[in-house]
Amino acid sequence: MIYVTFTYVYKPYFWFKIIEQMNFRTEHDTMGEVQVPADKYWGAQTERSRNNFKIGPEASMPKEIIHAFGYLKKAAALANQELGVLTSEKAAWIASACDEVIAGQLDEQFPLVIWQTGSGTQSNMNANEVIAYRAHVLNGGDLADEKKILHPNDDVNKSQSSNDTYPTAMHIAAYKQAVEITLPGLEKLQQTLQAKAAEFSDIVKTGRTHFMDATPLTLGQEFGGYAQQITNSIRAVKNALEMITELALGGTAVGTGLNTPKGYDVLVAAKIAELTGLPFVTAPNKFEALAAHDAMVELSAAYKRTAVALMKIANDVRMLSSGPRSGIGEIIIPDNEPGSSIMPGKVNPTQPEALTMVCAQVMGNDVTVGIGGSNGHFELNVFKPVIAANVLQSGRLLGDACVSFNDNCAVGILPNLPEIKKHLENSLMLVTALNPHIGYENAAKIAKKAHKENKTLREAAVELGLLTSEQFTEWVKPEDMVGSLK
Amino acid sequence: MIYVTFTYVYKPYFWFKIIEQMNFRTEHDTMGEVQVPADKYWGAQTERSRNNFKIGPEASMPKEIIHAFGYLKKAAALANQELGVLTSEKAAWIASACDEVIAGQLDEQFPLVIWQTGSGTQSNMNANEVIAYRAHVLNGGDLADEKKILHPNDDVNKSQSSNDTYPTAMHIAAYKQAVEITLPGLEKLQQTLQAKAAEFSDIVKTGRTHFMDATPLTLGQEFGGYAQQITNSIRAVKNALEMITELALGGTAVGTGLNTPKGYDVLVAAKIAELTGLPFVTAPNKFEALAAHDAMVELSAAYKRTAVALMKIANDVRMLSSGPRSGIGEIIIPDNEPGSSIMPGKVNPTQPEALTMVCAQVMGNDVTVGIGGSNGHFELNVFKPVIAANVLQSGRLLGDACVSFNDNCAVGILPNLPEIKKHLENSLMLVTALNPHIGYENAAKIAKKAHKENKTLREAAVELGLLTSEQFTEWVKPEDMVGSLK
Amino acid sequence: MIYVTFTYVYKPYFWFKIIEQMNFRTEHDTMGEVQVPADKYWGAQTERSRNNFKIGPEASMPKEIIHAFGYLKKAAALANQELGVLTSEKAAWIASACDEVIAGQLDEQFPLVIWQTGSGTQSNMNANEVIAYRAHVLNGGDLADEKKILHPNDDVNKSQSSNDTYPTAMHIAAYKQAVEITLPGLEKLQQTLQAKAAEFSDIVKTGRTHFMDATPLTLGQEFGGYAQQITNSIRAVKNALEMITELALGGTAVGTGLNTPKGYDVLVAAKIAELTGLPFVTAPNKFEALAAHDAMVELSAAYKRTAVALMKIANDVRMLSSGPRSGIGEIIIPDNEPGSSIMPGKVNPTQPEALTMVCAQVMGNDVTVGIGGSNGHFELNVFKPVIAANVLQSGRLLGDACVSFNDNCAVGILPNLPEIKKHLENSLMLVTALNPHIGYENAAKIAKKAHKENKTLREAAVELGLLTSEQFTEWVKPEDMVGSLK
Amino acid sequence: MIYVTFTYVYKPYFWFKIIEQMNFRTEHDTMGEVQVPADKYWGAQTERSRNNFKIGPEASMPKEIIHAFGYLKKAAALANQELGVLTSEKAAWIASACDEVIAGQLDEQFPLVIWQTGSGTQSNMNANEVIAYRAHVLNGGDLADEKKILHPNDDVNKSQSSNDTYPTAMHIAAYKQAVEITLPGLEKLQQTLQAKAAEFSDIVKTGRTHFMDATPLTLGQEFGGYAQQITNSIRAVKNALEMITELALGGTAVGTGLNTPKGYDVLVAAKIAELTGLPFVTAPNKFEALAAHDAMVELSAAYKRTAVALMKIANDVRMLSSGPRSGIGEIIIPDNEPGSSIMPGKVNPTQPEALTMVCAQVMGNDVTVGIGGSNGHFELNVFKPVIAANVLQSGRLLGDACVSFNDNCAVGILPNLPEIKKHLENSLMLVTALNPHIGYENAAKIAKKAHKENKTLREAAVELGLLTSEQFTEWVKPEDMVGSLK
Repeated sequence: MIYVTFTYVYKPYFWFKIIEQMNFRTEHDTMGEVQVPADKYWGAQTERSRNNFKIGPEASMPKEIIHAFGYLKKAAALANQELGVLTSEKAAWIASACDEVIAGQLDEQFPLVIWQTGSGTQSNMNANEVIAYRAHVLNGGDLADEKKILHPNDDVNKSQSSNDTYPTAMHIAAYKQAVEITLPGLEKLQQTLQAKAAEFSDIVKTGRTHFMDATPLTLGQEFGGYAQQITNSIRAVKNALEMITELALGGTAVGTGLNTPKGYDVLVAAKIAELTGLPFVTAPNKFEALAAHDAMVELSAAYKRTAVALMKIANDVRMLSSGPRSGIGEIIIPDNEPGSSIMPGKVNPTQPEALTMVCAQVMGNDVTVGIGGSNGHFELNVFKPVIAANVLQSGRLLGDACVSFNDNCAVGILPNLPEIKKHLENSLMLVTALNPHIGYENAAKIAKKAHKENKTLREAAVELGLLTSEQFTEWVKPEDMVGSLK
Repeated sequence: MIYVTFTYVYKPYFWFKIIEQMNFRTEHDTMGEVQVPADKYWGAQTERSRNNFKIGPEASMPKEIIHAFGYLKKAAALANQELGVLTSEKAAWIASACDEVIAGQLDEQFPLVIWQTGSGTQSNMNANEVIAYRAHVLNGGDLADEKKILHPNDDVNKSQSSNDTYPTAMHIAAYKQAVEITLPGLEKLQQTLQAKAAEFSDIVKTGRTHFMDATPLTLGQEFGGYAQQITNSIRAVKNALEMITELALGGTAVGTGLNTPKGYDVLVAAKIAELTGLPFVTAPNKFEALAAHDAMVELSAAYKRTAVALMKIANDVRMLSSGPRSGIGEIIIPDNEPGSSIMPGKVNPTQPEALTMVCAQVMGNDVTVGIGGSNGHFELNVFKPVIAANVLQSGRLLGDACVSFNDNCAVGILPNLPEIKKHLENSLMLVTALNPHIGYENAAKIAKKAHKENKTLREAAVELGLLTSEQFTEWVKPEDMVGSLK
Repeated sequence: MIYVTFTYVYKPYFWFKIIEQMNFRTEHDTMGEVQVPADKYWGAQTERSRNNFKIGPEASMPKEIIHAFGYLKKAAALANQELGVLTSEKAAWIASACDEVIAGQLDEQFPLVIWQTGSGTQSNMNANEVIAYRAHVLNGGDLADEKKILHPNDDVNKSQSSNDTYPTAMHIAAYKQAVEITLPGLEKLQQTLQAKAAEFSDIVKTGRTHFMDATPLTLGQEFGGYAQQITNSIRAVKNALEMITELALGGTAVGTGLNTPKGYDVLVAAKIAELTGLPFVTAPNKFEALAAHDAMVELSAAYKRTAVALMKIANDVRMLSSGPRSGIGEIIIPDNEPGSSIMPGKVNPTQPEALTMVCAQVMGNDVTVGIGGSNGHFELNVFKPVIAANVLQSGRLLGDACVSFNDNCAVGILPNLPEIKKHLENSLMLVTALNPHIGYENAAKIAKKAHKENKTLREAAVELGLLTSEQFTEWVKPEDMVGSLK
Repeated sequence: MIYVTFTYVYKPYFWFKIIEQMNFRTEHDTMGEVQVPADKYWGAQTERSRNNFKIGPEASMPKEIIHAFGYLKKAAALANQELGVLTSEKAAWIASACDEVIAGQLDEQFPLVIWQTGSGTQSNMNANEVIAYRAHVLNGGDLADEKKILHPNDDVNKSQSSNDTYPTAMHIAAYKQAVEITLPGLEKLQQTLQAKAAEFSDIVKTGRTHFMDATPLTLGQEFGGYAQQITNSIRAVKNALEMITELALGGTAVGTGLNTPKGYDVLVAAKIAELTGLPFVTAPNKFEALAAHDAMVELSAAYKRTAVALMKIANDVRMLSSGPRSGIGEIIIPDNEPGSSIMPGKVNPTQPEALTMVCAQVMGNDVTVGIGGSNGHFELNVFKPVIAANVLQSGRLLGDACVSFNDNCAVGILPNLPEIKKHLENSLMLVTALNPHIGYENAAKIAKKAHKENKTLREAAVELGLLTSEQFTEWVKPEDMVGSLK
């Protein structure tokens, strides 16, 4: 019996319908009255936005942004109190509601979409309303009370504007995500690849340039290259994060800090730093911080650069593991699932595929962010939500995909030694070792003869009379060809 | 009391935890046994994918794709039956479960993400498993039965491969969405703009080129240009949709149609056309249809082109309505919500903002789709889910945003006649009407003198002795300057 | 002796210095006097632009645009004459100078760069000035004469504005290039690939999906897929060209056709059609034609879509030809040059590489064009030159690269039959043919056993007791597995 | 008489035809004999490439790359000599020819295009051949001599491969350009904007958010925001340049350093640093340095980020200067040229337009670079030339455009004080100053009443009885509203 209930209960739509049939309460804003679902903490402005922007799925504004609003509204209240413009009572009320926002307990009170006003004003007001009204209820009030203990604008939004809160939330969310998800994912994968580089350091194999057989290197060197790419990507992301530490808060409407108490910008950034444990500071130039989102553009670019690196690595892994019988086949990757719904026994490089799809997404997101960033006008860039959503999607996908690729693929990579050996011994490019002894042109003659007549290099070399078999043995040692920078 | 319950009930996480604590049942695939949540219709392969690809939010595979699988699995069953390779009993079972998939009743049975194998195999298997097991239950079976009445691969997936089903689902989903959401949205907005063009056809105003005052035109002509842009965009989308009608189904694993009965590809496309009421046909070349998604790339490009057009229109609307006192201010747009959390009484062009953010997203998505499309190898492109997700997001956002912009902004646009008149009368570029009478260089002298000395053109013209005041009256008539192509 | 001279003569810089030391003549425009190199046909406005926009290499404005100005200025003169606003004498003078522009004889008189005013006004004036002054000289005048027989604005630019001439030149240039270079290149390659498809229609080989061995197909089927991709690309380009036939000319400053005689727009388009032999018509809406370049955005998108297709084809060719000993190695491509400066005898897939680099360029150009197209304001898009330059570069590179790839690679592709045979016989995915006989799961057991124990499918099948060796022979015939859609 | 000659002499085509008719000499490479123009320094491989890659205009390989090859070939020769693998005689010969390459004296000897092999091998060989043969001639030899004093591969290319030289040339060229052109351009503009910020620090004006009137700020604050954007862009470019200092040279064919003497990689980087005066070092991981161009991707991204910033600034400048009578009109920019070929006296923001077109180009180039960067395989990325060409175009255009915009526009920007004053006094958003006194909602009532009834804020406030005229005077002081962060 409980079963039947559950399959319905889990379906949000079902509950939504029930809720819709419930009563509404009347809220108002400067434009007049609005009917709001009686049980929701949001108010008039949120409801207006919900009705005016039915674009894409509901509640698409990233949760990371919502939670970041929790931090900043709390920090603002504490700073306001400390600077004497908000009572400690009100500050405490705001703080307690903010704690619930931060903890994700009020996520369902944020129904708005990315595709709203470009300043994110309506999500700022959503936060102001929910915090004010939730605090009212926490203090024993009723949502239906006409007068609540906090005013969304005058109290919760005190010393703030959407124009400085939304970009601040963007930075908080982006930084937090980068250090909690993106960078840990990259670092995990980097360590695995570095370990593989060490593990495979004695496995000499044929190199490939232009997809064609080339001089040898070790499998460890190949993986060391991958590890280095990620190391560099991490450095680039960290470079970009430097500017993300700068917060717009305190600039209010146009960057001048109108209606903020003296010292507020520095203090509120310090409060946010304290609450989040992250090194936020007030932006040195608030006009830039409102009117441009170059810092987010830069972070997106660092993610794009990371995606470019990961695309290369993932492509190599799928190509190196190709086969099992008619491909390159030099490494073996874990079999995690049946690969085909029609071809029995097929195993595919599904993790590299997921990763490369993520990379394609991140590369496209970067274009969206750039276009959004370039279209600010005068004192405000009004592509904030789309910039935020794309940067956050990129950061999340990269972090998650690195972990998935790492755990389900990279850690389990093994060398396919028989194939590696076969390819190495066959390689005509071992002839390169002869350049210093007989010159490029003579070496070319050997390689061409061997290729044309399907012979070994040794055979061709000796037949051409360019060197003796003994010299060949002495000069052409694949294991010596990988050494100089090993 | 009920209240308290509801605020918790609506939170998916809460139920999720409860469900997690429930029993599991054992399913298996060719790789062995897998524990699956006891109440879920999905099977071993879905569960493997769910565990192996924890990338981004759960269940991100677009619902449009899921529903499209409903159509194609039903069509395949009917075609298989008609061609004698599936019993009519099994076909009926499959069809009835598919009807539930199509109706969206089984949406919660599709937990997989975009970021899985690039062929979408796991979502195809998700469909196969859910349809097989749901049919089993519909026929009185129990999910815990080891043997079900249908086999996901041998029955539901009969005459199919992920490699031809997933691209077929892509085309079904994209076409359906285009004709149900994207094109209607565009057409609605086109009609409004066309109506405004007629409504404003007698309002002469100053033109602007390079953002600078130019010769006059009518406000109707401006809106007529916008309407034409959308008309052309609609044509481009329809051009692109032509190729989307071509379905890969019947190509199976690599495009050869292995394991399909003769005539199946044509028949199954006809079945899909019948079920959807849309003009689908079998692709003339199945190799192309599996290995490339140029058709989706082309549709994405048509959406990008549409976004480019809408960006221009939306920018113009926000700039024309700028002010209220220190901007261009020639049109008035509806006030839908308070514009600022700090500046009282401010009203902002929020709908154009949402629309331009959507445009930025669509332009970036197009890059993702292009990258995905360019990276197919040999017989299969394995960027299918990311291509599908981006095209579908673009189509949805464009359609929704056009409706939102139309209903909440475009239909309510009014001319601000006093501002229009003031600007027109002041315009120095009316001097252009004098070119045929006194030549470009003399006309330039008048404009420069008027600008420098802050005079009217008439004053400057007469003072320069280049024409009489009467001639000015006769030759410079703004209303005559808009006429030739009116 | 002559030798020494030549190596210097050929160096443009040398002559440039000499020319610089020459005398200047004085020209003027509405802003005053300008010193212009005495021997150049251009005038004051060109010289101003040359000095004011030193961005990137000199004379970067595409020559295709310059030549298109030749057509349109001649057509305008003829239309003006026919409509009675220009004497036949002046029309003839203009026409004769235009003929030289069209023939490329005056290319060096167009020194301006892409990075000038966004309306291309200065290149329009460059054309006006050069045509006026060249006609003056052709009629026995001297460049130093203060009064010339034609006025750049009043005569050569009669019934025109930069705002309608430059976009007209864009369309003329783009269309001409498409039909003269881009489409012929694509068609040539399409024919070669189609011919290869026929030539290779009996060569059965292993398929590859996910870069992994899959069920067989013919090499002809693979090439047939490529041919189809290009066929579809050609169709897309032709679709896009439809809108390029629409010319803005006649709209003049803002689209109203101010200062044009009645019937001019239709007539001048007919003249251009006649002069070029191409199906140009007047744009139905001149406001759209000036304010937006959606038609160019659309053509760029068609080129992007073509690049996506070519990227796939070129990648396949390089991967299929990889080796010679440790790659896929199923086709042999022509050796055109030594591949490596250090590895003797190495041959690389250089033509596919050039082609994929072109594709990357075209994909990026498309983003530039989209950004430019989306940033028009009011009556004019002022990203015209950058849009034109990118579309023209894409069209040229695609056409040239297809010819290069075709002539130096595609026509010479040969199957590597021994490798093809070896791969086919080894393929575990032949097991798929058993699905209808023993079911997917049993077939999977065979494939897995063969893979694990490094056996043939036949051995594994018989050992598992799932079928007899005779049944295997009967059921598993690669040549029958490619047939259904062959 | 000389005149007539000169107009012909300057036409490269003319000389080219003459040269074409000249004799050829026979050169050979490992593939056989090739006919090379008798007077050219290049050899067989260059000529093969010239014939095999007729894609786009001739000689498109960036000159910056050619000159960089001069540095690296000289450095390699010196390092080879120092390490005892090249005679000092040969090293001196190579060095003297390299000096001519560096000085640009041999530019016309590099006829190859970007669209060649993706490793740039043919341009490396072009350098090897030209240096070898030019040295031969410098030492009294004749180009027609069968045996020259230097061998292109064995001597000039000693201890090198295209695979490490071309990426090294990329880094040298990119770094040099960045510090010589791009950064100086940015710094020049930054200084101008910073100076304007100081100059305009007392000019209070209306702010604009969402393109709508907002609270005031100073014109200096606006320009200070722009200056900050460029400061941050410079920092980002410098961050990216860090990785560009790492040189691949010494990795040779696949990164192992095969055929290089011990210590060569470190020494040759030091030589390049010495010759260029730039802080180059050897790359810590040569495998990454050959197989990936993430460093170039990162530099491109920094340029993209810069373009995004400049686009915002340039757009603001053109919008702020719009008018002259019906726009925003708050600043006056220099009139550099007649703006329109049809509208007399029109002046346009042509420098901002050129700059925004450059920004669009850079943003698209970044996509090309990303796609190229993501498509490396195994030991080599073969999108080197297209990556190099796009990064170098971006760097050049940004540097040049900043200088052009600076010199011809930014330095001459003046405030339009009457317009600024008029806008400020009219602004309804001054009401925001009342929030702390009467609350957000009451302030909103005042603004709305003033807007609706077309009154001043003071009138509306007093009529509503919310404050006295004296209080209004005391509380609403625009000059006090810009102060807190001034």
